[in-house]
Parts: sequence; C-alpha cells; structure tokens
Amino acid sequence: MRLQHATWQEVEAYLARETGIIVPIGSTEQHGPNGLVGTDAICPETVAWEVGKRHGVLVAPTQNLGMAQHHLAFPGTISLRPSTLIAVLRDTVLSLSRHGFTHVFFLNGHGGNIATMSAAFAEVYAERSLQQAPGSELHLTTNNWFAGPRVRELAEALYSDAEGTHATASEVALSWFARPEAVKQVEMSPRIAPRGSAQCDADEFRRRFPDGRMGSDPSLASIEHGKRFFEASVDDVWEAYRTFSGRE
Amino acid sequence: MRLQHATWQEVEAYLARETGIIVPIGSTEQHGPNGLVGTDAICPETVAWEVGKRHGVLVAPTQNLGMAQHHLAFPGTISLRPSTLIAVLRDTVLSLSRHGFTHVFFLNGHGGNIATMSAAFAEVYAERSLQQAPGSELHLTTNNWFAGPRVRELAEALYSDAEGTHATASEVALSWFARPEAVKQVEMSPRIAPRGSAQCDADEFRRRFPDGRMGSDPSLASIEHGKRFFEASVDDVWEAYRTFSGRE
Amino acid sequence: MRLQHATWQEVEAYLARETGIIVPIGSTEQHGPNGLVGTDAICPETVAWEVGKRHGVLVAPTQNLGMAQHHLAFPGTISLRPSTLIAVLRDTVLSLSRHGFTHVFFLNGHGGNIATMSAAFAEVYAERSLQQAPGSELHLTTNNWFAGPRVRELAEALYSDAEGTHATASEVALSWFARPEAVKQVEMSPRIAPRGSAQCDADEFRRRFPDGRMGSDPSLASIEHGKRFFEASVDDVWEAYRTFSGRE
Amino acid sequence: MRLQHATWQEVEAYLARETGIIVPIGSTEQHGPNGLVGTDAICPETVAWEVGKRHGVLVAPTQNLGMAQHHLAFPGTISLRPSTLIAVLRDTVLSLSRHGFTHVFFLNGHGGNIATMSAAFAEVYAERSLQQAPGSELHLTTNNWFAGPRVRELAEALYSDAEGTHATASEVALSWFARPEAVKQVEMSPRIAPRGSAQCDADEFRRRFPDGRMGSDPSLASIEHGKRFFEASVDDVWEAYRTFSGRE
Amino acid sequence: MRLQHATWQEVEAYLARETGIIVPIGSTEQHGPNGLVGTDAICPETVAWEVGKRHGVLVAPTQNLGMAQHHLAFPGTISLRPSTLIAVLRDTVLSLSRHGFTHVFFLNGHGGNIATMSAAFAEVYAERSLQQAPGSELHLTTNNWFAGPRVRELAEALYSDAEGTHATASEVALSWFARPEAVKQVEMSPRIAPRGSAQCDADEFRRRFPDGRMGSDPSLASIEHGKRFFEASVDDVWEAYRTFSGRE
Amino acid sequence: MRLQHATWQEVEAYLARETGIIVPIGSTEQHGPNGLVGTDAICPETVAWEVGKRHGVLVAPTQNLGMAQHHLAFPGTISLRPSTLIAVLRDTVLSLSRHGFTHVFFLNGHGGNIATMSAAFAEVYAERSLQQAPGSELHLTTNNWFAGPRVRELAEALYSDAEGTHATASEVALSWFARPEAVKQVEMSPRIAPRGSAQCDADEFRRRFPDGRMGSDPSLASIEHGKRFFEASVDDVWEAYRTFSGRE
Repeated sequence: MRLQHATWQEVEAYLARETGIIVPIGSTEQHGPNGLVGTDAICPETVAWEVGKRHGVLVAPTQNLGMAQHHLAFPGTISLRPSTLIAVLRDTVLSLSRHGFTHVFFLNGHGGNIATMSAAFAEVYAERSLQQAPGSELHLTTNNWFAGPRVRELAEALYSDAEGTHATASEVALSWFARPEAVKQVEMSPRIAPRGSAQCDADEFRRRFPDGRMGSDPSLASIEHGKRFFEASVDDVWEAYRTFSGRE
Repeated sequence: MRLQHATWQEVEAYLARETGIIVPIGSTEQHGPNGLVGTDAICPETVAWEVGKRHGVLVAPTQNLGMAQHHLAFPGTISLRPSTLIAVLRDTVLSLSRHGFTHVFFLNGHGGNIATMSAAFAEVYAERSLQQAPGSELHLTTNNWFAGPRVRELAEALYSDAEGTHATASEVALSWFARPEAVKQVEMSPRIAPRGSAQCDADEFRRRFPDGRMGSDPSLASIEHGKRFFEASVDDVWEAYRTFSGRE
Repeated sequence: MRLQHATWQEVEAYLARETGIIVPIGSTEQHGPNGLVGTDAICPETVAWEVGKRHGVLVAPTQNLGMAQHHLAFPGTISLRPSTLIAVLRDTVLSLSRHGFTHVFFLNGHGGNIATMSAAFAEVYAERSLQQAPGSELHLTTNNWFAGPRVRELAEALYSDAEGTHATASEVALSWFARPEAVKQVEMSPRIAPRGSAQCDADEFRRRFPDGRMGSDPSLASIEHGKRFFEASVDDVWEAYRTFSGRE
Repeated sequence: MRLQHATWQEVEAYLARETGIIVPIGSTEQHGPNGLVGTDAICPETVAWEVGKRHGVLVAPTQNLGMAQHHLAFPGTISLRPSTLIAVLRDTVLSLSRHGFTHVFFLNGHGGNIATMSAAFAEVYAERSLQQAPGSELHLTTNNWFAGPRVRELAEALYSDAEGTHATASEVALSWFARPEAVKQVEMSPRIAPRGSAQCDADEFRRRFPDGRMGSDPSLASIEHGKRFFEASVDDVWEAYRTFSGRE
Repeated sequence: MRLQHATWQEVEAYLARETGIIVPIGSTEQHGPNGLVGTDAICPETVAWEVGKRHGVLVAPTQNLGMAQHHLAFPGTISLRPSTLIAVLRDTVLSLSRHGFTHVFFLNGHGGNIATMSAAFAEVYAERSLQQAPGSELHLTTNNWFAGPRVRELAEALYSDAEGTHATASEVALSWFARPEAVKQVEMSPRIAPRGSAQCDADEFRRRFPDGRMGSDPSLASIEHGKRFFEASVDDVWEAYRTFSGRE
Repeated sequence: MRLQHATWQEVEAYLARETGIIVPIGSTEQHGPNGLVGTDAICPETVAWEVGKRHGVLVAPTQNLGMAQHHLAFPGTISLRPSTLIAVLRDTVLSLSRHGFTHVFFLNGHGGNIATMSAAFAEVYAERSLQQAPGSELHLTTNNWFAGPRVRELAEALYSDAEGTHATASEVALSWFARPEAVKQVEMSPRIAPRGSAQCDADEFRRRFPDGRMGSDPSLASIEHGKRFFEASVDDVWEAYRTFSGRE
C-alpha cells in the first residue's frame, strides 16, 4: 500500500489497525561506469513497494536525496548537507507522529546516510528529552536493504571480494532488475576498483576513486542476479519490519 | 532522460551539449475524498518524464515532500517547514551548479510551495550578493504545471467553477491518468467544497475545509480528462522550458 | 495610534476593545536615479499612520529592512537574507500573539518581500501544526499598498505603460508627497527603463537594469500625484483592514 | 543626511569622500507608566538625525526591534531573540561592507541590546577568522547615547538616584522632546521603582518590576530637560563618531 | 604535550615538524550505580595525555559534553543536541585547519557520539564540496578507546558477557584507575543489567534501563583492571594514530 | 564535589538539599609568550574545584572552548562562533534545569565570553517569554574570577599598570600556581604590550598585538603570586555564589 496512492480516509482506516510505516530513503549520486545515479533510491523503493504489497504495510514516498557530499566531483550527484537531511527527517517524523504513527521504519539504500539518520533520530528525541515533554510513543529505526542476512549471503556467494563497498555488484544488479531499460554494458578498468575510506571531501574522493567505484567489480551484475537480491531483500526486510513493529 | 537512470558519464556527456535540467517538485498531502496523497508529486513527475523523453531534457528525481503544514490535520500529510524546504532547495541548486548546470527549471505541482521556492532562490542568490562572489551563471525558475495556458483553458472548458483551488478536478484527473490503478469513486458532499484562504494552521484549515477540498468538485474528473491534461501540460511545459533555457 | 507613542497601559486598554494591528514593512534599496533608498518603507509607513489616525487602529514600528538581495550592487541597499527575515517576522508575530493580538496586518511596500513573508507565516503556523499545539487565534496577512484597487486604477490613468515594476512612478510620487524635502529632478535615459525578471543575484540585476529602474519612467512623478496616491491607498488599506479584521 | 532620503547615486558620491555610517538601533518595549513603547528607538534616531544634519554623516534607517524578551509580559513589547538580532546585524554589516563602508557606528538606545550586538560583531568577524579570508577593512562599534559623558553628567545633576536603569528619567525626557504630542502625565507609585536584575524571563521580570520601571522616577522628566539631553547627546555622539571614524 | 600547557610559540614550533593532533571527546552522563558521570570524558582524556607524553603528540582540551539525550532522565547528565555538537566540532576543525593541522584524531569515549561525529565531519567536508573550494589537506577520524583490539581482548578475558554496552565494566575500571579517589562500592541488582536499544528518548530509556546500566556488571571492575585497560588502550591508540597520521 | 566524579544517585541526593551548581567556562587561546593556551579554562576550573571542595558545591565539567575568534591568527587557538557557544550554553542550561537545578553559576575565565554568555541566557529566557510557558525557576549568572574585589585589589597592588587586559600578569600567575610544571621564563619586548580594542578579526588583532599580549607585562607573574590570587579568588567566588544562590 503506497501512501502516494491513498486518500486521507484510507490512511485513517489503516491507522485504526496498524501504526507502522516504511519510508524508503536513498541518494542521488554517481555509481561508477555502469551504475545508475538513482541506484540508492531505486533499490529500497523497489523492495519497500513489494513488502507493502505482499504484507499490507503502508509505504511513504521515497526520500530521493541523501548525504552524498563526497560524490559531488562526479556530474549528476545531488547532495544534502547533514544538517539539511536532519531537518528533513525531523519534519517527516513529526508529521507522521502527529497522525499517530508509532513505528517509523526507514529502509535505506545508502551507507553514507546512516550516521546522519542516527543523528536525526537523536535530534528528534533530544527535543523531547531536554524539555521533559512526555511525548507520544515513537520508535525509529534504520534498516539497510544491502545489509540483511539473506542479501549478505547471496552477495558473498555471487561476488566474494568483487562485491565492494560503493557501486557494488549487488546494488547494480538490483537496480537493473528494477530498471531493465537502463542496463549498461561497460568494461571495468581496473577490474576491481581501489578500496579506501570515503571520509573526505569530493575532490579528494575523486582522486582516490577515479571512476567512482570503491572496491567493486559491478560488471559481474545481471538482471537475473538482481531478481535474486530482490527476493532476498524482501524477505530480510519483512522479517526486520515485523520484529521492529511487533506485528504478527 | 531521467537522471536516476543515467551514469555520471552520461550526465557529463549531456552537460557538454546542454546545461538545463527539470526538477519535479510536489508535496505529500491529503487531496480530499477521491484524490491521492501523492497527487502533487505524481502530476509534475509524469509531465516532466514525458517532456524529458520527447525532447531529450534531463529530469532530476522528484522532490516528494513540500510545504504542506496546513494539511497536517489530515492523516497521511507529511510537511517540511519552509526553512527546511529552503535548505533542501539550496543544496540541490548548489549541487547542480557545481556540475555546470546553468538553468534549473523546477516543475511544481503544489501551490503551497511557490512562496517558499521563491524565498529559497533568493537565499541562494543572497549568499552570492552579500559576499560579492561573482558566481557562475545561474538561472532558477518555478513553473506550475497547473497554471500553463493550455491547462487553464482546458480546466475552464471542462469544469468551470467546479475546478476549485485544492484537490482540483484537473489534478485529480491527471493523477488518475498517471495511476489508473488508484482511481476512487466517491460522492462529494457538498458537491462543491467551500472556498477560502489556506493561510492558517492545520487545525483551522480542517475547520474551514472539513473534507480537505477547497472549492472543487473532483468527482467530475476522469482518466480520459487526465489524458487531455497530460497532453496540454506537456506542451505548456516544453514551451516554457524552451523559453527559459534559450533552447531552440 | 502609533505603538511607539503609546504606554503599555494604553496598549492594554486598546487590546480590551480591539485585537488587530498594522505592521508597516518595507525595504532599504536603490530606487533608480530619482527615487529614495527608503521608498519602500516610507510609503507603507505614511499610509499606515494615516489609517491609524483616522480609524484608531494601532500601528507597529516600521520594519525598515526587507529582502533586497538583488539590489545589492547599488550603493545604499541593505538586505536581509530570506531566512533572517523569516526569523524577524516569526519573533514579531509570536510577541504580538502573546499579548492577545489575533489579526496582524502587514502593510508592505516591496514586491520582493511577498514570497518571504508568506514563507514566514507558514513557518509560524508549521510550528503549531507539527506539534499539534492548539495555539490561540492567529490571522496573518500581507497587504501591498501598491496593489490596492484605487491605487492601481490611478497609476494606470496617470502613467499607463510608464508605471513599471521597480522605482515605479507611483511609489516615487507617494514618497515625494511624504518627503517633499527629498524630491530630486533627474532626466531618465532611456525614458522608460528595460523590463525583465529580478530573479537573479545582484551583479546580474545591475547588468539587466543599469540605473536600477525596471520598466518605469519615474520622472513623471510629482508631489501632487503623490497626494492622490496617498488618499487612494488610505482608502484601499482601510477597506482591506476592515475586511481582514472583521471590524465594522 | 539620511540614507532613506538619498538616491543610490548620492550614496555613491558620499562613499567617494567618506566611508563611515551611523545606524540607530533601539527596541520596542514597555517603558513604565509614562514612557513610550518606542523610547529606545526614538532617542538614538533623534540624536543620529541631528548629528547627520550638522556634520554631514550618513544615517541608516533605524532598527526598531531589539532584544527585549524580559519585557514581553507587558503589552506592546515586541522582541527579537538574540539569535535573530545577530542575523539582522550580520546581514546589515555585510550589506554595508559590500558597498565600501568601513566604519559602522551603531547608535544604541537599549541596554538590553549591548551583549547581543557584541556577539553579532564577533559572529561577523568569526566568519572571516575561521576561514582565513582577508576581508576588507571593517570597524564596528556600539555607542550608547545614554552613556555619553555629557549625558551622564546631566542625568546625575538633574535626577541623581531617581534616574534609574529602565524607563529612566533621562530617556523619557528625550523622547518627550522628540515627540511632544505623546507626553503623558502619570503619578508614580512608588515614586522610585524597585531596583534589581533584568536577567530573567518575562514573567519573573514583571513580578520584580510591577509597573515596568527599574529604579527610576520618570515623573521628573520634562520636555525642557529633553532638549538639554538632546544637545548633550548630539555633542557626545559626534565626538565619539569622530574618534571612531578618524574623521577630522 | 598538552595544548592547554603550551604557548602559541610552542604550538608554532610543533607545527613545523608535525601536523597531527589528538582531541579527546567524551560525555557527561550517568554511568549506573558505581560509574562516574564523567567516565566518558575521563577515559579518553587519560589515555590521550599518556600517548601525548610518551610519543610527543599534541593533545587538545577535552570536549566534556557529548550527545547524551537518552540519559537525561538521570540527574547529572548534560547533553548537547546533535546539531549543537556538529557546530562545536565544525568550529574546532576549522580553527585547527587554519593553523595548519592536517590530521585531527578524535579520541572518543562515548558510543552515542559516533554518529553525530561522523555527521559533523561530513558537514565540514560538504561546505567544501558544495562550493568547489579546493581547501587545504584535512583528514578527520574518530577512534573509540573502548574498541581497540587490545582493549576488546582484555574486556572479553576479564568480563565476557558481563562487560555490557553502557556503564561497562571496562570503562568503570579505567575511570577508577584515573580517579582512585572516586571509587564506589555498590552492589548491583540485578547483577547483569538488561540489554536493549538506546535509540529512544530519555523517559523511555529510564523505563528500559532502571539503574542506567545496559547489559553490564560493573561491580567486577577494579583499579588494577583499570591499569591494564590503560596500558592496552595507550598501545591501541598510539598504533591507530600512527597509521592515521602516517607518522613513523 | 565534582560532577564528573559523582554517580547519578549522588547528584540526586545533592539536589534534595541544594539546587545550585558552578560551571567553569574558559577558552582555548594564545596568551602571549609566557602564558598557556589553556589559561582561561585552567584558572576558573582551579578556583571552582576549591570552592566546591571547601563548601560542598557541585562543580560541572569545564567548558574548555569559548569565543576566541580574534586570537585565531595565533597557532593553538580554538574558537567557537558566538552562535555555537549560545547553543552549547542553551543545551547545558536546559539539561540542568530538567534535573531541578535552579541556580547556574558560570565561573568565567575569559572576557571575550561575557557578551555571548549574556546573549545565551537571553536566548534561553526568550524561548520561555515568547511562548508564555511558565517554566520552572531558573537563575543564571556570569561571574568572572578575574573581576572579584579581592583579586582586583591584589592585581592593582602587585602590578598596577602592568596588569593589562589580555595575558594579564594575574592570570598567568594563577595558571602557573595551578600548573607549576608549565612555567615559562620569557623576556617581554616591549616590556608592556600595546593597549587597544580587541573588536576586530584575527588578522587585524595580530597586527595590533604582535605577540598576543594586550597592555600587560606577565613576566612579573610568579607561582607565589598565583597562590595569593588563588586564595583571593576562592573567597571572592564563594561570597558571590552565596549571594546568588541564597545559601547561608
């Protein structure tokens, strides 16, 4: 059930029986020579919609922009500053909380968002804690589709060391499954990209990772692999959501 | 051409021949008894993708959240504060400007965004103007899909007084064309909703507009109307984009 | 009745019978070769004081600085960033609301302020809407003295196409009526200034509008015209204030 | 010479010979039973205009709102938060600095502004110091009209212990000289108001100072006294401005 | 070498030979029945000072306040909001960078700081990346004293499951070694505290963890253990600092 | 009694009998050729700990960073912007207030902090005053250890004109008493440093005060003097704290 496709009366009815919601969050950033700029948003969105459809969980619109400052030396990247992303997530959570949502499950597609998301949750809680306002029940969590147990196992089996940490083979595969019309066949050179830390500014990042990949060989990806990651992730996420929301 | 479906090398190639981009921006807010919460994002996104496809213009990911504070008393609405939206748009524009984009055309689906978008543009320009930094060429504009000449004429012809100003018949029609699976048949009572000002907080807004509509009878909408709004808007937008970007 | 000239006990007495207030807001920015830097503040202040005197409405001190970033390439302009003006208006409204004012009528003299003022009102309302605090009654509006029906008709009759959109003949006339000691006789070249958009930074604005005027020939202005604009505007504003505040 | 009454060409000509400017800054706050809400703005504005007239110094528009949070329990007070006032002063200084002003002399009428003004200057300087930008010459100072040597001597001679620290006899006298139409004759009870600290919130302030005065008996004020304060302050301020700006 | 004990000339001389610095960062928060409120600051400070002494590395003053909102229901806790801590770290890094420091090694004592520290680094880098300013060389890292390999091994050996995740036996031991005068003998009930997530507000945290401990039995701690943690951590940190700074 | 050395239960017990607390606040900034970068933090910390020990007052961890932007051209200085320091103090006060502390006594070691601290207190109070929230009892004060009567008398007696206003003989003496291991013997040239204003940016400050001292000859300082300043200040501060907190 997608929030964008519901009327407010349908949301009201949903809230009468369930107060959890899934919010896909990604990024708009380069993903190397054969990866899509939208990879990090497309992947969690695709998984979230399927979980929503199979299990009747409401799915909010995707947050397409994330914290991607280190990718800004590559054309097409759009980044929010951490302070901006904190404000966006704060307003999102306060809006949902006003309606009675108690469990907000952010399904994340970008490792670079994780720290800022955690800071954003703390910012929301700190407003309550500093003012001793009791506040209503509010549970917040970040779930990374790429870190679920079934997904990790599959990536290890398919790619081992060539999976990498940015523009990974697994995320390229899933994005191709979701957008078969956008598959690109590109040869990688070197086959496996250099490894290293992304904690730096954009110019330094591009010096370290000249074609944008980090430690990966995404030419191993395929639509068929993507389908398997899709199924693995839908199961991972549904399991995590059930535990988080306390739903049967 | 969708930015989400491109690699950074494809964006680089695009920038070598053209430096304009379309950014769809909407809102996540109630749209009355038969309108979708995602109406304001779905409409400009649908039009933008078609303009991009027909004319080869790059289209950024949709900004799904807007300034919708007055709708927060209806479940499902998610609003950014104006100050948050200003920060989001500032970071978006600075990111694009860094890559060499000179004409950023925001295709907007929500009247409530217009003032804040204008303030955001001024915030970006003010940073330049207060510091006497020359800055690179940067043109920003807001185009409202619902206000184009062909769209206005069609709405007048089809609905006249029943078009209204929120949850309008025309936007409901276009969103149904874009999402036929989400059409809802609901009787309106009263047939035409009350008119008035939306400049108030959420509780007051709901008192003034009990079912969320403002001055409209969206039960007049149909998928077939939506298709005509789609064609009208694609032409309106392409004309406006060409004038703005100086493209032939 | 001017707030600056009252004691707090007099304000208390006023609030017992009426809870509306007029707040003049302008800008400090170049107005071409014969217009005053203070035009946008002087005009609404002059009108507001007269409405206050004739009809017993309380008038707050004038907000002399507005959003004028695009004029900063001309000496004498002082601009607030939009985010700063939002903070000023928020604090102003919260202060007045605390005392029991329910209708705050901003009488504006600068087109460049309108969007930011609207964003500021939404920022105030959003704090209420996001936290579900009921809040006390609070109505906010922007009235532009230059856009009232009598003023528009008079400007059309006197200047037609030479009225323009910045450093207009009508505002120069009204400011001269208010400050006869500051009248300047300057020949305009070209007689009618170029037209165009002000949505750009300060350097670009000066390139587009070399002497600061936009589409106007303010050499047509006279003190006698100013007197007629004054009378027209006092009537326009009083009518608008009465409707807004629900006063007889 | 008032900035509000100049054209930008006149400001340009002024800057060719002198780069100092006076900015009156006050507050909008209760001043006891016979003092005006506008006292703190009216006093420095009146003095600044006279200094400007006698000595040809440019005078910017008055900042009518200051940091007056502790007075908010008295109707009519409008306060900016310190963070808002810092933003206003920052934008003011950056605007003036862009035009080539090198000496900004804030003529202040409100003790409660002093700390925040000093913090605002440091905020401007800190942006330069943290980024190692050389920046152009920029001197900022706060001058309190009520603290000049001639003014202090006169207040001591006229009122001694009854001068007080808020709603003082001297400022009431000067404001009456400036606004004879607004003189109020009110008996004070107790004759001399209680003394104490204003470092508290608004409710506590009103508990400490029930009629708004702090340590003063402003019923001693008169228009004739006001004229003497006016002359004393014009001399004090001119002397201070000359020293600050290095002008002959 | 402690920065607090140096003159600026000594810092200048240091920078001629080395451009790395260690910044201890902790928190001020409850640590259960026998742990000190200052534990998280005392531990990294103690280790940093020793590394500085043994190896001649400059050590900045300790950041005693961190992000501890979830502990605010226990008396004595002082927390910064994430947005405040981001501002503090940003200013710290910009100050150091201006002087020529290129490697800033934050030695952290509080798990709750990690996400916000990462967001703060990204905020600093984003300012560079969004404005395409080249910037000088700048490396930032967070090192958690409690997560070094020697420390982890020792904690496992000494406490196994009773180590816990807040008010851990190891940090209590180290703080006692550093402050023997503050050792407290308290019986724990239950012996091992409940486990769970700290991602919640302060009231909820206290409900989950009634005496403040998370999963630990810190009554196992001793000064003698603390001495062993001290030695282990000094070695862990020196190794990490050498790798980070590229020093021999 | 140091907060860092207490458990939360000990703080709880303290609050049952007394609700005042001392918060040392300093700066990290150059102090001339023989003064320590940490002088401004070390001095109030040392005094506060002794007052705490002798009289049983709780002492919070030291705020080691202050507003020192003007010293940033000297290596080793770390400065917060005023807006950052305001946020830090706001969060500190709100944290303490939540626990029931009613009297927060900031013991300050840096003149450059005073204005920003006052603005920070006003920011806290303004949030209450603008929202008409009653708030709990909250008294805030700044006490400057260097400005107590006994300290002033001693400095006059020992150094007269050579005391100066930055890197003063008295503060160097006290810091040496506190840190005898860090005493530096340096000849001063000129013997007494130039006097002047510190209201400028860092580069200008260094031009005005080439070795960092302002008007002082700190080579007169000695550990023995420091001991006398220590005793004088402990008495000054205890007297001031008793008056402030209403304690016997």
